[in-house]
Amino acid sequence: MNHRLGIPDSQFIRGDIPMTKQEIRVLTLAKARIAFDDTIIDIGAGTGSLSIEAGLLASQGRVIAIEREPDGFELIKANAAKFKAANVEAVLGAAPEALEGLPAADVVLVGGSGGKLPDILTCADRLLKLGGRLIVTAVTVETLSTTLNIMRQRPEYSVEACCVQVTRIQQVGTSNMFKALNPIYIIACTKESGKAVNENNSL
Amino acid sequence: MNHRLGIPDSQFIRGDIPMTKQEIRVLTLAKARIAFDDTIIDIGAGTGSLSIEAGLLASQGRVIAIEREPDGFELIKANAAKFKAANVEAVLGAAPEALEGLPAADVVLVGGSGGKLPDILTCADRLLKLGGRLIVTAVTVETLSTTLNIMRQRPEYSVEACCVQVTRIQQVGTSNMFKALNPIYIIACTKESGKAVNENNSL
Amino acid sequence: MNHRLGIPDSQFIRGDIPMTKQEIRVLTLAKARIAFDDTIIDIGAGTGSLSIEAGLLASQGRVIAIEREPDGFELIKANAAKFKAANVEAVLGAAPEALEGLPAADVVLVGGSGGKLPDILTCADRLLKLGGRLIVTAVTVETLSTTLNIMRQRPEYSVEACCVQVTRIQQVGTSNMFKALNPIYIIACTKESGKAVNENNSL
Amino acid sequence: MNHRLGIPDSQFIRGDIPMTKQEIRVLTLAKARIAFDDTIIDIGAGTGSLSIEAGLLASQGRVIAIEREPDGFELIKANAAKFKAANVEAVLGAAPEALEGLPAADVVLVGGSGGKLPDILTCADRLLKLGGRLIVTAVTVETLSTTLNIMRQRPEYSVEACCVQVTRIQQVGTSNMFKALNPIYIIACTKESGKAVNENNSL
Repeated sequence: MNHRLGIPDSQFIRGDIPMTKQEIRVLTLAKARIAFDDTIIDIGAGTGSLSIEAGLLASQGRVIAIEREPDGFELIKANAAKFKAANVEAVLGAAPEALEGLPAADVVLVGGSGGKLPDILTCADRLLKLGGRLIVTAVTVETLSTTLNIMRQRPEYSVEACCVQVTRIQQVGTSNMFKALNPIYIIACTKESGKAVNENNSL
Repeated sequence: MNHRLGIPDSQFIRGDIPMTKQEIRVLTLAKARIAFDDTIIDIGAGTGSLSIEAGLLASQGRVIAIEREPDGFELIKANAAKFKAANVEAVLGAAPEALEGLPAADVVLVGGSGGKLPDILTCADRLLKLGGRLIVTAVTVETLSTTLNIMRQRPEYSVEACCVQVTRIQQVGTSNMFKALNPIYIIACTKESGKAVNENNSL
Repeated sequence: MNHRLGIPDSQFIRGDIPMTKQEIRVLTLAKARIAFDDTIIDIGAGTGSLSIEAGLLASQGRVIAIEREPDGFELIKANAAKFKAANVEAVLGAAPEALEGLPAADVVLVGGSGGKLPDILTCADRLLKLGGRLIVTAVTVETLSTTLNIMRQRPEYSVEACCVQVTRIQQVGTSNMFKALNPIYIIACTKESGKAVNENNSL
Repeated sequence: MNHRLGIPDSQFIRGDIPMTKQEIRVLTLAKARIAFDDTIIDIGAGTGSLSIEAGLLASQGRVIAIEREPDGFELIKANAAKFKAANVEAVLGAAPEALEGLPAADVVLVGGSGGKLPDILTCADRLLKLGGRLIVTAVTVETLSTTLNIMRQRPEYSVEACCVQVTRIQQVGTSNMFKALNPIYIIACTKESGKAVNENNSL
């Protein structure tokens, strides 16, 4: 593997689609604990920047990048080609419908839900293997609170959440100015095999 | 490579040595753009958590982890053994002295300077190959401003800096409370081959 | 009025009760737009630090400080005496019950809800005059999302919210280190007389 | 005094001049611990929003608002008229020159330095009474580090500093999105009469 972690934002083909910033992309992948042979589903893949970096890490796995906007769908394909991420497959469609028939996954990434977050979380749970990780990135109070509310009630999941606030320091003349990016919330849910077994035993 | 990016903090052997948090470790590695065959020098390696994760990414490279505290030196060796990072070599000593005789590096990480930051930056520059990356993590105003002040004056370097503030969201009863971690500043300096050539040409 | 805005935290008598930090206290008062003759109800008053600073601003008004913990109730009285805030009246009791029979208010401050936030918001609305301000400070995802969810649905209210993150810079030896405080969310709801009139007219 | 603390940003006449946000304005005033009869000098007053809110708090004191841009100078006068802050006096000029001949001050606010921060801090010290407060707001690494470096070396001053990061929560459709404002650093320096006396005694 000759991939360098942390592709700069500027290297992706973007169009007008909003793109997850490098720092958040890397933290999302770290929370997902991606292994070299993982099967990864990326819901609301946007420009595909996260899918591609996931695909490069999971060099012997595969990434299914779901995006409902045709422009995004095209960008994912273009970026996968640019970064030679042959294991990233773009799917044009909206979750949860587009999740039907997908293979069992080690990692499900939820970056956009189009207002159907509870359904998407249910489908994601069905697709996720024991030991798998579900990672939701949130930019609204509603996505954060809904995800925590639903996932904390599922005893087979360990849930960990954080807010990440990045401030860029930009040179302006001879000064270095602070320029804030919007905060992002990352909710990382691990489907624990041990927990699930205990659950079953206790029935 | 079967490494999963983003080893949880709890998996490292720690003792009483302060440890870089997972989120900051991952972002530092991303800013360092580590490649599989890089030579990496980690100055002020502490528990070795950053060195080890760097070594696992640079699976065919090597990491020289410099730490002046004997306790830290022992922890680095113990963690390297635990995570089977055979390419991480612990060195007991203080920078800049301990940097003498080291090989040319693709990446120099500065996590602690013991009050000798300007000297360390000078030595790091000498060790760094063209195209190499120098990454300083700062928890004080002084380290941030000194690093920016020195590195912005070296025209062969591209300098990028940011502040990262992580807030953990912890379950307390039925509520999710926000618990702030201290902000960390990351200054990433790339020794540009193109820039250096132009510099030389202009002489 | 000889009050100086922004009493340092250290000047309040505290005991073991958690206290709103100075910066948050001042911002809460600013969002409440306290006038000199306001009637203010402070729910979950804790040590009374917010009540007292409100009482000093509303020098010809009054503050009713409700606290269900006897220790807090005593601290409020002690702090009111210390700062000569004779217009601050401590009430021992829990909301919403303790809100019965209170006078109409210009400002209702909600700092603690003991799990009864929806009821408290309903009672607060009943007490609030037209033009009055309801300010909720939140340290959990649940208080933030519940307050936004309820108050955004009441068309007579203008709702404004923010998160405030303060990082103290502390001298450690010759360095200045960053020490983060936990973020606080402030939701400020104004009961608009104009809006209410329009509402009534449209019936 | 019928002033309500925390005038919303939208009520000030602004033009194209950048304006301190409400939250930072209020915190700056709190750190300045303004009393009703204080003499206040505001250096780099911009639109005058801070000067005017200071003048309303110091209802029997006075504010001298120094601004080197003619547009700002006019805005200060217009805003002082709008808010009936007759005790705010606009001065067209640049610090440190414009500080010559000013009266002794209880509070000096430094919001802009035009690259002459060390000189301005020296002049401000000369103007400041014992017990007075010097408050510098910084948006660059350089202003933060220079102010800390200079003021920490003056033993007669107590120096306290913090970073304030405000994130607005905006309604977008049915969601509440987080929109970060840039962080501001506030350095509050109190010229301690006790400390100064001890200093003198020790000579």
